Amino acid sequence: MKIISNKKKLAEFVDNEKNLGFVPTMGAIHSGHASLINKSIASCSKTIVSIFINKPQFNKKIDYKNYPRKRIKDILALRKLKIDYLYLPTSKQIYPSGHNKNIKISSFSKKLCGKNRPGHFKAVVDVVQRFIKIIKPAKIFLGEKDMQQLKIIDHFIKKNHIKTKVIGCKTIREKNGVACSSRNFLLSNQEMKFASSIYKYISKNKKKLIKGKIQIKNLRSKIIKLGADKIDYFELININKIIKPYKSKKKYKIFVAYFLGKTRLIDNI
Amino acid sequence: MKIISNKKKLAEFVDNEKNLGFVPTMGAIHSGHASLINKSIASCSKTIVSIFINKPQFNKKIDYKNYPRKRIKDILALRKLKIDYLYLPTSKQIYPSGHNKNIKISSFSKKLCGKNRPGHFKAVVDVVQRFIKIIKPAKIFLGEKDMQQLKIIDHFIKKNHIKTKVIGCKTIREKNGVACSSRNFLLSNQEMKFASSIYKYISKNKKKLIKGKIQIKNLRSKIIKLGADKIDYFELININKIIKPYKSKKKYKIFVAYFLGKTRLIDNI
Repeated sequence: MKIISNKKKLAEFVDNEKNLGFVPTMGAIHSGHASLINKSIASCSKTIVSIFINKPQFNKKIDYKNYPRKRIKDILALRKLKIDYLYLPTSKQIYPSGHNKNIKISSFSKKLCGKNRPGHFKAVVDVVQRFIKIIKPAKIFLGEKDMQQLKIIDHFIKKNHIKTKVIGCKTIREKNGVACSSRNFLLSNQEMKFASSIYKYISKNKKKLIKGKIQIKNLRSKIIKLGADKIDYFELININKIIKPYKSKKKYKIFVAYFLGKTRLIDNI
Repeated sequence: MKIISNKKKLAEFVDNEKNLGFVPTMGAIHSGHASLINKSIASCSKTIVSIFINKPQFNKKIDYKNYPRKRIKDILALRKLKIDYLYLPTSKQIYPSGHNKNIKISSFSKKLCGKNRPGHFKAVVDVVQRFIKIIKPAKIFLGEKDMQQLKIIDHFIKKNHIKTKVIGCKTIREKNGVACSSRNFLLSNQEMKFASSIYKYISKNKKKLIKGKIQIKNLRSKIIKLGADKIDYFELININKIIKPYKSKKKYKIFVAYFLGKTRLIDNI
């Protein structure tokens, strides 16, 4: 595993790589990342992982400050996973002349996480397209846990006729059902138990919700009872309608974002 | 041949076309365009030609105003060439919220035509990338007569990891040697004869120039004697050095731009 921080040096390694797989991360590597990385290694000639905590996509300074940072553990974990390159850029390398706020992205960005996180998805797309320009990967691997992010990035890449193919990968869950996330590192043991109960409760009731046998407001109040401190959103969405080129057999998805203490978790089921 | 002006309608036709060839033009179709179109038809499943006189790339209003406009003749010529789609967008369709002056392009844009045409290449790249986003072609066919433009577009497409492949096509010349150009429509018979003599003179002396047996200043004054009213530039360039990913066996090229009356002609030999 080669660790590279300079983009010009990186270019020497990756510019002639025809089938490069790219897994962008903000670090705090977990089983979800490992699954993306293993998919990339299996289908690409070389795999590059980036760790970059992208400040512009955080709406609150405190959220950026508290975001888990585990640089040494991450490097050891990535070495074990046998990736080829680890890209650790500085902020200046990514934003030589600042963050681009005028980027045009899918209107899907206004829903769900976009409602209470203004500018979040623009900043995500901006940083991803910057990485794509530097790395020029054949494939980029993104987790379905962040379904909205995945679809917005896919839409941007197709719209801009960019060469990189977006590979969406199934959500990986802890044994207790909670979707793997770097933010899970911020949870206490009790909060982890709450998250597990909430996931199990939603899973158990999803069919009833789709069939109209239970109402969203009932699920919301139950989630609060199960330990959530606040619900950001809880929505049943026909994804085939909202995300145009998307055709899933299971057309309904429950999208949820809620707080456990100061930690905001998202999931889609 | 389907004629389409609306980009949403266009999307219906081209969005699922896997091997679409695209020839962008500003109209006044000539044998150079025909050569690009024939190459596209030979190597692509469908061929789309656009006619759009891109105002932002003109530095002088008078040059924009005088640019040859031959809409009816063009349509008849393109129908004869058996293209699949002719895209005739309005300015609003291409620039719904104005022209992007902040686009980043190759530093090669500062040389040759870039010296006396500030902003010209940025405007060219901006419009080409807008067309690429709308049309999403597998290949774009560009003439080597506009070598600098070709290389700057190729650089931008590679740098931005865009899916479209740039196909550079040899310059097509009139029987008298003059490179085919829409601007030739603006020449009088006498000016056309001047242009022919200038081309022949440069061709005859190119080896002497490379070997240092003749000096540039001598060629320049001879070109004026042959009828040119003004020389914009006359340069011998090692293109393998200036254009980084470019490796040509014939590494030297003479780049010339000069005026015949109000008409500015360019060529590279």
